[in-house]
Amino acid sequence: MSLHGKSFIAGVPVVSGTDTFYAFDPRTGEKLEPAFGESRSEDVNAALQSAEAAFEVFRKTSATERATFLERIAEEILALGDPLLQRASAESGLPQDRLIGERGRTVGQLRLFAEVLREGSWCDARIDVALPERTPLPRPDLRRMLLPLGPVTVFGASNFPLAFSVAGGDTASALAAGCPVVVKGHPAHPGTSEWVAGAVNRAAAACGLPAGVFSLLQGSRPEFAIALVKHPLTQAVGFTGSHRGGRALLEAANSRPQPIPVFAEMSSLNPIFLLPGALRQKSQEIAAGLKVSVTAGVGQFCTKPGLVFGIGGPDWDAFTEAFQSAIRSVAPGTMLHRGIREQYCQSAARTSQTPGVALLAQSDSEAEETSTQARPLAWKTSAQTFFGQPTLQEEIFGPATVLIEACDLGELRLAASKLSGQLTATVHGTPEDLADAGPLLEALERVAGRLILNGFPTGVEVSPAMHHGGPYPATTDSRFTAVGTAAIQRWARPVCFQNFPETALPVELRNGNPAGLMRTVNGKLTRDALGQ
Amino acid sequence: MSLHGKSFIAGVPVVSGTDTFYAFDPRTGEKLEPAFGESRSEDVNAALQSAEAAFEVFRKTSATERATFLERIAEEILALGDPLLQRASAESGLPQDRLIGERGRTVGQLRLFAEVLREGSWCDARIDVALPERTPLPRPDLRRMLLPLGPVTVFGASNFPLAFSVAGGDTASALAAGCPVVVKGHPAHPGTSEWVAGAVNRAAAACGLPAGVFSLLQGSRPEFAIALVKHPLTQAVGFTGSHRGGRALLEAANSRPQPIPVFAEMSSLNPIFLLPGALRQKSQEIAAGLKVSVTAGVGQFCTKPGLVFGIGGPDWDAFTEAFQSAIRSVAPGTMLHRGIREQYCQSAARTSQTPGVALLAQSDSEAEETSTQARPLAWKTSAQTFFGQPTLQEEIFGPATVLIEACDLGELRLAASKLSGQLTATVHGTPEDLADAGPLLEALERVAGRLILNGFPTGVEVSPAMHHGGPYPATTDSRFTAVGTAAIQRWARPVCFQNFPETALPVELRNGNPAGLMRTVNGKLTRDALGQ
Repeated sequence: MSLHGKSFIAGVPVVSGTDTFYAFDPRTGEKLEPAFGESRSEDVNAALQSAEAAFEVFRKTSATERATFLERIAEEILALGDPLLQRASAESGLPQDRLIGERGRTVGQLRLFAEVLREGSWCDARIDVALPERTPLPRPDLRRMLLPLGPVTVFGASNFPLAFSVAGGDTASALAAGCPVVVKGHPAHPGTSEWVAGAVNRAAAACGLPAGVFSLLQGSRPEFAIALVKHPLTQAVGFTGSHRGGRALLEAANSRPQPIPVFAEMSSLNPIFLLPGALRQKSQEIAAGLKVSVTAGVGQFCTKPGLVFGIGGPDWDAFTEAFQSAIRSVAPGTMLHRGIREQYCQSAARTSQTPGVALLAQSDSEAEETSTQARPLAWKTSAQTFFGQPTLQEEIFGPATVLIEACDLGELRLAASKLSGQLTATVHGTPEDLADAGPLLEALERVAGRLILNGFPTGVEVSPAMHHGGPYPATTDSRFTAVGTAAIQRWARPVCFQNFPETALPVELRNGNPAGLMRTVNGKLTRDALGQ
Repeated sequence: MSLHGKSFIAGVPVVSGTDTFYAFDPRTGEKLEPAFGESRSEDVNAALQSAEAAFEVFRKTSATERATFLERIAEEILALGDPLLQRASAESGLPQDRLIGERGRTVGQLRLFAEVLREGSWCDARIDVALPERTPLPRPDLRRMLLPLGPVTVFGASNFPLAFSVAGGDTASALAAGCPVVVKGHPAHPGTSEWVAGAVNRAAAACGLPAGVFSLLQGSRPEFAIALVKHPLTQAVGFTGSHRGGRALLEAANSRPQPIPVFAEMSSLNPIFLLPGALRQKSQEIAAGLKVSVTAGVGQFCTKPGLVFGIGGPDWDAFTEAFQSAIRSVAPGTMLHRGIREQYCQSAARTSQTPGVALLAQSDSEAEETSTQARPLAWKTSAQTFFGQPTLQEEIFGPATVLIEACDLGELRLAASKLSGQLTATVHGTPEDLADAGPLLEALERVAGRLILNGFPTGVEVSPAMHHGGPYPATTDSRFTAVGTAAIQRWARPVCFQNFPETALPVELRNGNPAGLMRTVNGKLTRDALGQ
């Protein structure tokens, strides 16, 4: 297996310019061969023209055909074997074991969306039969279902080089919905991207789909990202990354003559609230769990807890002390790339310099810059300081968190109500704690997409009931999830067919209901065929 | 029944400034008493503060309580009796009969959303039970449902002073979802708005709800509309009106520190395609139906057909001639207000002056300006002219349409592919026509929210399978409908509860499923309780 360093436009390796960039092994700083060509605006146009042409075929595929395609992508990714994991590890610094797990998740997501398609009810089919005799006006036959939006642009994320990248959740859900995908590969792992794109290309060919159903454009320049969003054929955007990046894409999308939806999952502090009884009963256990949640994967998860609130007193002090020791014991780890490490160092310096914020703990070992390491860190401050320092609500991406001491439950509630939008919010409490925690939980329900009791926010299940989203700035659209089966709904819109003969209707809306979909027929949910 | 000319903030009549405006009877130009106070920024703030406070209570109401509230609003509107219809008629120029029908629709919508709430499955409850023994990692208990976004601002539309105004579809669906509503009343019918707002206030009081669940702000100034959208407590916006107005609100929403969803239903030409067999078999019938669809309600429906395409030849000529006579026979009608009439005259003049466009027909009677009349109009042109003149894709709101002659089916398809986003697209064809019309229908499926065969687009059913939406500029968000039961989905977002004890969960997510909701349990749709 070799790498050619080119983009893939509709299955064809393409390099249109002479500018290149390289991946680097963050563990060593070593430059990794080969050079990758920077995509240019003509590549953006070619990829989207191919996607648009492919859409004319792809939108007419059956749910089963698309399921087979997704399953084939999963197989082709597995067939890439160990070299994929080795390259991904070299490009991301992530250990092989983690990448084995992430590959499992990537393959699992593809298969899960295949299941969603084979079951089929996701398309929300609704039928109101004609009532020709109704007075004063007859009712026409109305049949509605979700249909794909068109070509989608997906931005690969650096922190999941497999599961949120070229064939990750955004791509899997968009293809499931029937949308061709143009991926902008993340410049930190172009080799991983190229191989996974090859796997998608082979799956498309094996399934007899037009090659334009998928393209991968490699590149490192912000203006190229904006060009993808602004291209008139792009109909929606999926992104996981920084607040600044997501907001820029949102603004580009909204300034188009035809604005398009942007699903950007951006920034979350994932606050944790420790209630008095929980602190009394299990401060050591919580400190140990928090250590893992803050530092696992070198803190590079979007659900890493960055704010931990509790009420001052001996139990809080015991917890703080235990957490202090725990953080000291965690060795620095290699971050994904130098840019993320620089950002981490800047955010840490900003926090350390914030008036009223004190360093609580740092890893006993110093971080080595040559191996792109981040030193685990924890700070402590008061709720009053938190209220007065808005920068404490800026995400620190990496193995760091801030402990915040409140004077009473009222101040905890006030802190909850002052939070900006979050992916998650967590409460630790005994049954007695929770009996008094209604207002706190209600405040958190306003700001978060997922509420967790007596657990930790990291570890996002890929399942029907998962919601990985939340109010701005956690995401740009709180109504949709980036993880779990509901993610498919981002890429579709309803279309209603009025007075269509059976044969001109999509199969999902025909009387016979051959796939046994759950449909809303005359207002009632049923799997029955019509006329039975 | 009298009018006080004040806004209603949380049930209390308020007038904060001294500036006023009046409604006018478009049939006579007569100024209608009383003067209405112009809302100011402090009123916007007071209304949204009240809405935010009310939300803390309203979000915790049961679906049944909200259903009762909606049903009570319907009763209170009916209890306003004939004076409401008389005032609405004076303020809109719409005849009493039409307003009786519209009141029925308004009341019917409120009751339909009450039914949706009583059935309850709209909240898309999903449960993945805990799998504590799963390896390598256990699965936590995950339960997700849709919860209300928060205070919603609704802009009343002038063309449906009841059904798309103070207690219209946007308000009904937002209240159903659990969102307090602040309505900006349309300045053309402030008296109608005041009375309907009083009905909503009485219903809220009768149901023991906080008065802040609903406010009506009266005002005529654009900056006041923008202030509503920009207020930080506004969490979503519903609007029906012009493209310019909707785009301004969208841009205001997107420029907020926290962008919010805007559901603006703006502008649609609702193209009709007449295929050769249909023209041959029923050109007279189509001409008669088209006349009604273009001129009913003085052409002031968002689904009025503004472009009619066909292939040149004797059948097209026969149709054109029949339509010409039909338009000549329609008397001018009174438009909703002077601003709409001015806009109609300007759009008509622009169309008449477009090179290659010829006037085909006009009403035999001239329109009287004193009674705010619009003269029915039709133009004809060629597909080639249509391709070269983008202004022909601008909506003409009023009783007018443009017939466009193509040379063959290929040109029809090309025209379909060049259309901007539409609420509807219609095809008339015999079974033989339709056998060849696949590519045309596919092109139309890309641009429209509703496709109609052998019918007319006006007359929008309020039902589960209706989709009243479409790609931009028909709406700002093609994924949602403004009419029908699915409209409730605009005002809600998913929240996932992880590891919550039964008693801390919303009732919709508890094991017992007392309301018998259709839920997704471990990936399967079922009405069963858990553990059965």
